[in-house]
Amino acid sequence: MKEKLTIVKVGGKIVEEEESLQQLLSDFSAIPGKKVLIHGGGRSATKMAAQLGIESKMVNGRRITDAEMLNVVTMVYGGLVNKTIVSRLQAEGVNALGLTGADMDIIRSHKRPVKDIDYGFVGDVETVNGELLADLIQKGIVPVIAPLTHDGKGHILNTNADTMAGETAKGLAQYFDVTLLFCFEKKGVLKDPDDDDSVIPYINEETFKQLVNEGVIQGGMIPKLENSFDAIHAGVSKVIITLSTAIDGKSGTIIEK
Amino acid sequence: MKEKLTIVKVGGKIVEEEESLQQLLSDFSAIPGKKVLIHGGGRSATKMAAQLGIESKMVNGRRITDAEMLNVVTMVYGGLVNKTIVSRLQAEGVNALGLTGADMDIIRSHKRPVKDIDYGFVGDVETVNGELLADLIQKGIVPVIAPLTHDGKGHILNTNADTMAGETAKGLAQYFDVTLLFCFEKKGVLKDPDDDDSVIPYINEETFKQLVNEGVIQGGMIPKLENSFDAIHAGVSKVIITLSTAIDGKSGTIIEK
Repeated sequence: MKEKLTIVKVGGKIVEEEESLQQLLSDFSAIPGKKVLIHGGGRSATKMAAQLGIESKMVNGRRITDAEMLNVVTMVYGGLVNKTIVSRLQAEGVNALGLTGADMDIIRSHKRPVKDIDYGFVGDVETVNGELLADLIQKGIVPVIAPLTHDGKGHILNTNADTMAGETAKGLAQYFDVTLLFCFEKKGVLKDPDDDDSVIPYINEETFKQLVNEGVIQGGMIPKLENSFDAIHAGVSKVIITLSTAIDGKSGTIIEK
Repeated sequence: MKEKLTIVKVGGKIVEEEESLQQLLSDFSAIPGKKVLIHGGGRSATKMAAQLGIESKMVNGRRITDAEMLNVVTMVYGGLVNKTIVSRLQAEGVNALGLTGADMDIIRSHKRPVKDIDYGFVGDVETVNGELLADLIQKGIVPVIAPLTHDGKGHILNTNADTMAGETAKGLAQYFDVTLLFCFEKKGVLKDPDDDDSVIPYINEETFKQLVNEGVIQGGMIPKLENSFDAIHAGVSKVIITLSTAIDGKSGTIIEK
């Protein structure tokens, strides 16, 4: 039987404010067994870009990454946010290792082809090399992964943190019994968007289709759930969509086959 | 017999200009066998600080690292410079892994005590955990180390890259037959500072003392050589002081017991 591995994806906001960061560090440290943290950092990047007089261009909530912005996200995601989390986790007794997809060639991508919109230096994931990563996790190392990948030709590429989490989970599923937690600002997938307590406890593919047809699940939640089923089809045992302050896996929406 | 390991320390300048960076990447990639790269990045940090309106304060050529500057060096050394080198080395077929001292707790330091000068968030190295690092190197991974350490209490500390190189070499000497190359802008230790070709080919402790007494070796070269002998006493086989464009170890000044 494979050993359990918990992969937690948190957005930028939670790691960018001291209070929520400290809460996350405590909660994450308390997760028993093997674990991986994947973080965003968009707000810090936007703030740093503004300080440098670089305009943040967003289309449909997604960042356009030109050459200048690529330097900013490389600095902020790979340096400031990542190493802050690593050093803070070390203080909690967690032997963290900060990584991007370029490090040990763990996540390789290609620059997103230009269709209607040119997203710039944005990577679509191609391959995940889970072997060395799995080996380090077995040794007690806790990877902390920034949303950056590389193309194998010397270029860093800005990559969606949800995608990084899903792909990492899939890449590690052959070595571990993986639970993937997507943390965000809601308690889970809600039946009623205006009622924060209307969390749907379980969703499988059948109920997912039904809920989409009924219009209960809509907007950005649809790709999040599609990603979740994609991960499950690739061998991930369980996906949980939950609040950033509830990463013990005991609440939220559980997504299963 | 231990396997050979080459540790190369390069200053900021060489990694911050495209032409010299490409040369370094080719030269470093061509070094046979196991290797480690340790880099600076001071000029980029100064430039980024200036763009952010943060003044770089230097005392005797050393940076004063206040809280704002610590964020800058964490971003620039740990993010921009480190991940650029890593992704570029990946393109050369070198399986690089970018690290700071906080990652896997490899280099722990304490904040330098305030005497005459308060250097701020600057770390004096305490311990190097070579075991996990040695294990990764054995597996073919090439660590690329930024000049940042941590205090184990959640703080990143800015750390001299020469010191990082010396300490890393010492920490790995029990696992490998280590050659440490300090690269700088001269061909080696010079007999005549005005004659770039007056490289002293070998220095041992006896000739070092003699050369200091004669006034041939002076200034910043004295601590560099003292660090070199310190490394050799701690088990490092050989230290070479050479030009950044001559990292094949075939020229420069060789320092031996």
